[in-house]
Amino acid sequence: MNRKFETNSKGHLVLGGVDAVELAKEYGTPLYVMEENTILSAMREYKASVDRFYNGNGLICFASKAFSCKEIYRIAMREGLGTDVVSGGELYTALSVGFPAEKICFHGNNKSDKELEYAVTSGVGRIVVDNAEELERLSKIAKKLGKTAPVMIRVKPGVDAHTHNFIMTGQIDSKFGFALETGEAMDIVKKTLDTPDVRLVGIHCHIGSQIHEMLPFTETAKIMMKFIADVKKETGAELDELNLGGGFGIIYTDEDKRIEYLSYMEAVSKVIHECADSMKLKLPFILMEPGRSIVGEAGTTLYTVGAVKTIPKIRTYVSVDGGMFDNPRYILYGAKYDFLLANKADKPADRKVTVAGKCCESGDLLGENVELGNAESGDICAVFSTGAYNYSMSSNYNRNVIPPVVFVKDGKSRVVVKPQTYEDLVRNDI
Amino acid sequence: MNRKFETNSKGHLVLGGVDAVELAKEYGTPLYVMEENTILSAMREYKASVDRFYNGNGLICFASKAFSCKEIYRIAMREGLGTDVVSGGELYTALSVGFPAEKICFHGNNKSDKELEYAVTSGVGRIVVDNAEELERLSKIAKKLGKTAPVMIRVKPGVDAHTHNFIMTGQIDSKFGFALETGEAMDIVKKTLDTPDVRLVGIHCHIGSQIHEMLPFTETAKIMMKFIADVKKETGAELDELNLGGGFGIIYTDEDKRIEYLSYMEAVSKVIHECADSMKLKLPFILMEPGRSIVGEAGTTLYTVGAVKTIPKIRTYVSVDGGMFDNPRYILYGAKYDFLLANKADKPADRKVTVAGKCCESGDLLGENVELGNAESGDICAVFSTGAYNYSMSSNYNRNVIPPVVFVKDGKSRVVVKPQTYEDLVRNDI
Repeated sequence: MNRKFETNSKGHLVLGGVDAVELAKEYGTPLYVMEENTILSAMREYKASVDRFYNGNGLICFASKAFSCKEIYRIAMREGLGTDVVSGGELYTALSVGFPAEKICFHGNNKSDKELEYAVTSGVGRIVVDNAEELERLSKIAKKLGKTAPVMIRVKPGVDAHTHNFIMTGQIDSKFGFALETGEAMDIVKKTLDTPDVRLVGIHCHIGSQIHEMLPFTETAKIMMKFIADVKKETGAELDELNLGGGFGIIYTDEDKRIEYLSYMEAVSKVIHECADSMKLKLPFILMEPGRSIVGEAGTTLYTVGAVKTIPKIRTYVSVDGGMFDNPRYILYGAKYDFLLANKADKPADRKVTVAGKCCESGDLLGENVELGNAESGDICAVFSTGAYNYSMSSNYNRNVIPPVVFVKDGKSRVVVKPQTYEDLVRNDI
Repeated sequence: MNRKFETNSKGHLVLGGVDAVELAKEYGTPLYVMEENTILSAMREYKASVDRFYNGNGLICFASKAFSCKEIYRIAMREGLGTDVVSGGELYTALSVGFPAEKICFHGNNKSDKELEYAVTSGVGRIVVDNAEELERLSKIAKKLGKTAPVMIRVKPGVDAHTHNFIMTGQIDSKFGFALETGEAMDIVKKTLDTPDVRLVGIHCHIGSQIHEMLPFTETAKIMMKFIADVKKETGAELDELNLGGGFGIIYTDEDKRIEYLSYMEAVSKVIHECADSMKLKLPFILMEPGRSIVGEAGTTLYTVGAVKTIPKIRTYVSVDGGMFDNPRYILYGAKYDFLLANKADKPADRKVTVAGKCCESGDLLGENVELGNAESGDICAVFSTGAYNYSMSSNYNRNVIPPVVFVKDGKSRVVVKPQTYEDLVRNDI
């Protein structure tokens, strides 16, 4: 593992200036630790990239499905970001800390009437429409509430950039959005322009997750600008806003590399300027929706090692006190992570082991064939880059309680999400 | 789909004597519906099988990780069953309704000290030891508490019967238990007999899940009886109890068949009697741990259909208002289910569609290529056999709230787990 990490004189892992072993002692394990400065840096870099390369004519919306809790919305708000939400629950959490509704984008392939009403009533800035039937429902709801709903249309640009490779066709097979190539996208734009009580603000796309290359992003920007030009030609309407979605890759292990946010915006801005010039369009207001790349690398999960079981000639299982209930990404996707013994951080990772969770399920592993030092019962095991899609995907499977989230910064720690209790587990049980 | 189901004069699906469409109206969707009589029947059949074929000399322990909430423990208790728990949280839930601790088995490959203390303090009847280090910790804890901990040893019998096939070797590569073939199992038995403050009650095994054949079960019973004989020969100790675990398959779709519980016990009892005779052993007290086969087929999830999106020449996506947050088994395992439009239950399933969830994730599907009628927005979509590992694996992913659980019986419905609210989502947020 080439990952750089900080240690102290005891040879312990240090997170945000705090000894990780002390964190485990103070808060117990499993424990989600988030380095606040990493979050702030990412937010500020994204924001600076829009200021520097696009004259500030855009909004970074934190994609909160990656990590949703009150505090992250407070931070995004203070940093001048917007946010994107995908459910009434995320919207509720954002609004509960006073997040400005006009800076919220509401997404989803199947929003309920209740959610649409909630969004319209709250004054959400952009409701991203995903299908024609939703547009009709939204129009009715807006009318009933005496409001005009601001709408973006989710477009499938035909670029599929999931996981390291990208292809230029095929992405139309998705539950999300309207395909460009079939004419659906143009049809819904026209329909939206003709629909009362909604106002078409712009178009949205999202080409995938954990993308490590620039080309799919710039190609997508071109395609979307071309579509804005086509819309102008066919309808006379010039769209104000272009939402380019998210998908920026982070570093989980040495296999990953990362696009710098500044170079992303520089490249995309260049494409948009060129397209606007050649297509005689005004420069659209840009939205971007990074989620994983803001919180992912900030997070480290701490576990206590329990049973260590060596099966001769097969493998060694190192069991920890968490598992698929706090991090389902291995069992879901075979996701890879870097592991480290936080209390032996200065010792070499001299063997490969399987890290198992504590759930009663054979597949409950956190990693196979991962580099780890000589783990013994009582050691503190750190798993890096767990800030995104860990807490937000956690469950009470096996009636395990969901661990607390602690933010660390400049040598201090604070609880951001309190630990669940056994009482919480039966709160809704009759 | 050859599944039999009940309909009423409106052509609606009927569950436990109640119109499913009315249930959706009354409680909203998504909704977990459980037919109580199906649960009771399964519990009673299992119990009767032990009475009839094994002279009642055994205990059926409901494996509550399949579905854990207060009410299911109340029912198991009333029916004279035991239960198996795999965490402090499940133990807490069982004890909170007065479940008799002596009828509880505590499992897990990595129980914490806190959990072991909780089990010993509560007087749990069997603690199933999974590794040598746990045995030492348990001994210390029992001593500290002035108690003797009743112990079973989890053995890997070398039979692996996961999913339709079984093999007689290879299962030693598991995070659970002690292998027979390497001598580990015998070593830990001897060690347990020599360890103070614990009492060796018997041995446990679990050979897999969703098993549809008899042979792996009877082979396992033979192997375990042989091991009891070996233990007697080597140590002089004759073990009192044999826990044969669970793994009984249920019917999800036409691809599955089911072993009758009576024939299971008849076959296994015969093997145990033969072994006891030939090996000159007393008949052990038998424990069995069915989970899925008690609650799985009892459950039906009801959803409301939202967006229906046909992608020409590719497929039709039918989006429902639930998804991987209430049923992660498709995205986890590609699990198959039967689907039906509850409000058009008398109409033919005349096409194949993809049923998508509402989560912002391309993989959030509930089934692909599933038979369904002509689904339209507002229809009620039923998914069968969702009683096990659905509610218990549910999450708040995308900050969706977890649906309520309603029991139906003899034409009446009652809430067993209340719906989560948005307030629940932020309860632990600072």
